[in-house]
Amino acid sequence: MIDLRSDTVTRPTPAMLQAMMQAQTGDDVFKEDPTINLLEAKCAALFNMEAALFCSSGTQTNQIAIKCHTRPGDEVICEAEAHIYQYEAGGIAFNSGASVRLLPGDRGRINAAQVKAAINPDDVHKPPSRLVCIENTSNRGGGSCYHFEELEKIQSVCKEHQLALHLDGARLFNAIVAKNEAPAQYGKLFNSISICFSKSLGCPVGSILLGTREFINQARRVRKILGGGMRQAGYLAAAAIYALDHHVERLATDHRHAQMIAEALEASRWVQTVLPVATNIIIFETKAITAKELVGKLKAQGILCNAISADRIRFVLHLDISPQMAATVIKTIQSL
Amino acid sequence: MIDLRSDTVTRPTPAMLQAMMQAQTGDDVFKEDPTINLLEAKCAALFNMEAALFCSSGTQTNQIAIKCHTRPGDEVICEAEAHIYQYEAGGIAFNSGASVRLLPGDRGRINAAQVKAAINPDDVHKPPSRLVCIENTSNRGGGSCYHFEELEKIQSVCKEHQLALHLDGARLFNAIVAKNEAPAQYGKLFNSISICFSKSLGCPVGSILLGTREFINQARRVRKILGGGMRQAGYLAAAAIYALDHHVERLATDHRHAQMIAEALEASRWVQTVLPVATNIIIFETKAITAKELVGKLKAQGILCNAISADRIRFVLHLDISPQMAATVIKTIQSL
Amino acid sequence: MIDLRSDTVTRPTPAMLQAMMQAQTGDDVFKEDPTINLLEAKCAALFNMEAALFCSSGTQTNQIAIKCHTRPGDEVICEAEAHIYQYEAGGIAFNSGASVRLLPGDRGRINAAQVKAAINPDDVHKPPSRLVCIENTSNRGGGSCYHFEELEKIQSVCKEHQLALHLDGARLFNAIVAKNEAPAQYGKLFNSISICFSKSLGCPVGSILLGTREFINQARRVRKILGGGMRQAGYLAAAAIYALDHHVERLATDHRHAQMIAEALEASRWVQTVLPVATNIIIFETKAITAKELVGKLKAQGILCNAISADRIRFVLHLDISPQMAATVIKTIQSL
Amino acid sequence: MIDLRSDTVTRPTPAMLQAMMQAQTGDDVFKEDPTINLLEAKCAALFNMEAALFCSSGTQTNQIAIKCHTRPGDEVICEAEAHIYQYEAGGIAFNSGASVRLLPGDRGRINAAQVKAAINPDDVHKPPSRLVCIENTSNRGGGSCYHFEELEKIQSVCKEHQLALHLDGARLFNAIVAKNEAPAQYGKLFNSISICFSKSLGCPVGSILLGTREFINQARRVRKILGGGMRQAGYLAAAAIYALDHHVERLATDHRHAQMIAEALEASRWVQTVLPVATNIIIFETKAITAKELVGKLKAQGILCNAISADRIRFVLHLDISPQMAATVIKTIQSL
Repeated sequence: MIDLRSDTVTRPTPAMLQAMMQAQTGDDVFKEDPTINLLEAKCAALFNMEAALFCSSGTQTNQIAIKCHTRPGDEVICEAEAHIYQYEAGGIAFNSGASVRLLPGDRGRINAAQVKAAINPDDVHKPPSRLVCIENTSNRGGGSCYHFEELEKIQSVCKEHQLALHLDGARLFNAIVAKNEAPAQYGKLFNSISICFSKSLGCPVGSILLGTREFINQARRVRKILGGGMRQAGYLAAAAIYALDHHVERLATDHRHAQMIAEALEASRWVQTVLPVATNIIIFETKAITAKELVGKLKAQGILCNAISADRIRFVLHLDISPQMAATVIKTIQSL
Repeated sequence: MIDLRSDTVTRPTPAMLQAMMQAQTGDDVFKEDPTINLLEAKCAALFNMEAALFCSSGTQTNQIAIKCHTRPGDEVICEAEAHIYQYEAGGIAFNSGASVRLLPGDRGRINAAQVKAAINPDDVHKPPSRLVCIENTSNRGGGSCYHFEELEKIQSVCKEHQLALHLDGARLFNAIVAKNEAPAQYGKLFNSISICFSKSLGCPVGSILLGTREFINQARRVRKILGGGMRQAGYLAAAAIYALDHHVERLATDHRHAQMIAEALEASRWVQTVLPVATNIIIFETKAITAKELVGKLKAQGILCNAISADRIRFVLHLDISPQMAATVIKTIQSL
Repeated sequence: MIDLRSDTVTRPTPAMLQAMMQAQTGDDVFKEDPTINLLEAKCAALFNMEAALFCSSGTQTNQIAIKCHTRPGDEVICEAEAHIYQYEAGGIAFNSGASVRLLPGDRGRINAAQVKAAINPDDVHKPPSRLVCIENTSNRGGGSCYHFEELEKIQSVCKEHQLALHLDGARLFNAIVAKNEAPAQYGKLFNSISICFSKSLGCPVGSILLGTREFINQARRVRKILGGGMRQAGYLAAAAIYALDHHVERLATDHRHAQMIAEALEASRWVQTVLPVATNIIIFETKAITAKELVGKLKAQGILCNAISADRIRFVLHLDISPQMAATVIKTIQSL
Repeated sequence: MIDLRSDTVTRPTPAMLQAMMQAQTGDDVFKEDPTINLLEAKCAALFNMEAALFCSSGTQTNQIAIKCHTRPGDEVICEAEAHIYQYEAGGIAFNSGASVRLLPGDRGRINAAQVKAAINPDDVHKPPSRLVCIENTSNRGGGSCYHFEELEKIQSVCKEHQLALHLDGARLFNAIVAKNEAPAQYGKLFNSISICFSKSLGCPVGSILLGTREFINQARRVRKILGGGMRQAGYLAAAAIYALDHHVERLATDHRHAQMIAEALEASRWVQTVLPVATNIIIFETKAITAKELVGKLKAQGILCNAISADRIRFVLHLDISPQMAATVIKTIQSL
């Protein structure tokens, strides 16, 4: 089967597995796991931020960041389709007791003017606006990337209004590669950044949260209270180090595959429209067939994918999709 | 000054004050306040529901209801402009740890099809849908009333999907009078109802929450934990009893005043459009002047009102607006 | 019946009721209730604190204070029998998500050395200690009063360790009268103070929370989110103003009654021991009879009181217990 | 260094590491990791419970269990020194909004009579008692084990009063081995059980939560919302499977080492008393030296351990302490 359901389905390569197996480990609750310490230092340096914390998932790094930036009764501003609202099981309210202000974006992206207009006045009826969350690339926006200038404008609004600014960078390296940016640019802009290793970077488990030293100290407490403190998790961190060293540049391949497959989809009689493809995600609308039916047809041809609404399907390219597999997908689409 | 900012600004009439002064009271934490007991029994009978609980505000009755119907991590479905989301300070997340699913309504009203489509699938990424909240009349919808048939359809959807159904009836009596309905019709439809006495019914303080005996027992616990338990609050309950006996039918007067003032507004060159007037609230858009400026002009003429957005103003009619005052408002509008 | 169950059972005197019914009122959510504004100013001045907030109960003022001083995951230090832990329905965890560190006190009173020893080290396994709560007089401690010097020492420990210090002063005026202290002494010591008007001060409903201007602004938000915002609650505030003017000095009478009744109890063959009586509360242990049985016997003689454990009974003196009634209680005890 | 600080410091043996690296994995969020599925099935079968959930830590399994058994405002009954209260960072309040009722135990063990007496009456001032948590073996109790008959009595009390009963079995296998019990005995008694693999079983990371199918479904949701959902975590689950197959019986060795070292301690002039040793933990009180000083002396001799109070030290035996190391510890104690 060719699994396009998500880039979370990848399995470690033999080389990554070897790196894992050779990891030096220790008890990370005592901060004594050298591989985790190395990963945290490496990530902080890469993004030019003070400190980092290794966690078990991107949901956990996002949820911890939201918790640290807010108090119960505060409001979080994000795009209506944001992962933190759509796919984190209601965690903003559950973990942080925070309200959401949902902005309709352009393929998952909001702009500075929207953010500014969404800030609540100082009125006892309204939760204080406290945090803006950006998702780059945007999952439900079809892998779309922000223009860096817009992010700078959003930062200005946040500074002016004393709002914290968090980046859900589950797939940030896709944006960085696609737009030829540098991680440190992002470190300068955001109060906290979450990066996921188990998506397009191909690791089995793990995410990192970045911020100031004080922020990360608080995050470490929250990680503990959520039960996210792990002991000899250096085996997982070793995979992340390997991925940073070997799996970043190759994301361009996934992006190329995505472009090619999108072109095939555009020519298909089952496809109404394809969202512009910016990175490794393709979202398209079906025509004359429901999304569910088309998912079934593709499965019968050996291709797994997800319907994300009644008439929308998502394909995600990743490390485990070889050029041959991409070609097979294209051929299958053409033959349907 | 003629105060059209809200129907919460009313002061007790001399007769209501006399009723308050003569109230028999006791310690309600021990359930020994006879006036509160009487009010709770009277309301339960009126709506043909099992039990009732007197609380200090409509926000409190709504928040307690949401708390009792949900667990943290559940999702509440409501209209995007609902009071529980817009004016209760983020209480859904703060008090209940619950997420919101905000539906775009028709002047504050949602329909059964929307509710059905908004119910989350059984997916670990999604908060379980648990509660639908209806607001009738809708404050931000300009006092609009639901068609009762639509409410019945919404109840069917809720029953089918094991969702609780709560009514924020802060101004329910306005709907009941305007549409010639009976309270017991509502008791049959909803799992819980909140009624506010300090809005159009003219009381100084107080709301009532209605539900099953078991629900109200749990609500009493939550009221206590929020610090909402009061001792000899029978003085306030006496006003509510008085209002139920004397201030319900007269709401028709407020509605008539609202109609007349809306007509004057429609003829004004400062007014772009007036939302259809169904009860005691008028919402209109300004033209060639900002809402804030027009509020200032009206204040200079002795009329207080609120801008609810950059170009929208709300007038609320109530017990303290006499026919003379309504006439003055009309004349002032015509002379602007 | 002579009701010694609690000082919450009092009903307004005719003079207090007249003060209530003549109150000038307005919409307090808009800060326009002149009587509430007056009460808040009066209390702030009396305690020489910056600002005050009128709330519906002592539980609410305590819970709001705890919320404002802490974040979820912090720890609150208090005596094991403290009202905030024993009688506020688990509100510390429910409203604030805060842990408790319960110290065994001397009739409800803790000391500075205990507080110091209870402060958690900076360890990710431990909730950060954030707030110390003192109850003066102590309800479950039998109305005991703190030595003021001990409170000063506790304040020193709190300052040294950046802990906030809150006073649950539900019956603080009993301590002030018994020990001939001044309210402003307390204002100097505590970051926040809660005073209840519906206990020994004889009001039907209401408490006040005192603190800095910034703290009270935040408290106002929390009050709103709990549904504690009331509209024309000046009727209740008027009672509180009346009580401050007329019901403080008379507490000495309740204290005298309590002493006399305690002496009678000490001589009774049904009584094992009587806790030292410092103010208006008497707690005694029964002998050769369960507390429940003795409560029943007293009820049969026209005296209501509460068993607070299997062998402990509490009597509370208050405004509605006249010298004649106190004499009757003594006679009844002697005749049992 | 000989590390007796905790049994969490162990590193995988080569054979365990090999098992990890040969694990078949998949995306566990889609329930497609065969090794995790196998571990969950194996544990459920071993304890004869319906279902199991693999989590990242014992804190997480405990916190999820408490969350699933309670609603905010409920009360949890546990021993005053319980791990869930002492070492989980205030998680009971933070994650569940639940109060605690702390019972003074016999080396960490409570009895059925205490539990019964601690159940709150149906009173609006009191949080409803909902859950009893047992820790077996007890960490702060020095590795003490419950008498199984007492656990059966506690279960009876719980059933009678509709309380849930959870077992923090972080070191349950130590008890099972020490007392020659069977896992299924425990499955019969408890509504939920948490087992930790990264303590004495010698795994790098991981715990399992056991319960009914419905309970585990809910637990899976909570795990997701805490960010505890991992993708290809089969590498960690493989270690747990290995440990169940190879590291259980060998716990007897740790227990024997602990006995021998305890005897040496009892003979030492630096030691006041040693708590009875039941399993792999030794707690002793120092004499004529502070705990901190003795920890320093031992460190200088190559032995790491923790002071758990001003005069108490804890040693924990585990997989990485060979017979030679144990002998060295004994010799060092004798030579001090």
